[in-house]
Amino acid sequence: MNKAVRLQPFEAIELLGKSSLWECVAERGGVLRRTVMFADFSDAFAFMTRVALLAERRNHHPEWFNLFNRVDITLTTHEAGGISARDIEMAHAIDELVPG
Amino acid sequence: MNKAVRLQPFEAIELLGKSSLWECVAERGGVLRRTVMFADFSDAFAFMTRVALLAERRNHHPEWFNLFNRVDITLTTHEAGGISARDIEMAHAIDELVPG
Repeated sequence: MNKAVRLQPFEAIELLGKSSLWECVAERGGVLRRTVMFADFSDAFAFMTRVALLAERRNHHPEWFNLFNRVDITLTTHEAGGISARDIEMAHAIDELVPG
Repeated sequence: MNKAVRLQPFEAIELLGKSSLWECVAERGGVLRRTVMFADFSDAFAFMTRVALLAERRNHHPEWFNLFNRVDITLTTHEAGGISARDIEMAHAIDELVPG
């Protein structure tokens, strides 16, 4: 795998797309953040399980927080010191797993 | 289920037991907190899956954060406005799921 390169915020935002539900946050060189709400804990954890499998397959793991029906996901690339293309790809792949 | 009663910190600490790895934190009326480390994400998420099933069975859900091999768990009882017996029981049950 090539060394991950840090994207500038405007690059990240452009790659995410205009209608993206991911926020580009100026924290630790840049992180992507999205909150996803579900009907209940069972639905939230089912989603988390799918994201966990995705993370293992890509060897790129989210930082995430869960409280009942809420999942807060943070993506960043430590070796890039901020947001890299891997985070953008992961964000798009996670979006595919959000029901609805 | 009886209404959950808020425990005083000294009561919570006594019920947890002297060797408990849970911290009693003065936050939002009181929360219990424990961090568990694993070899990798796969082990961490396997543990989270078991805790998720436990949480559903007891209808008492943790607030938790995961980053790769680390799981931070916070327990509190909203309706009690702090730590209740349900959190103590959950803490003991979670301890049983920690490998080693």
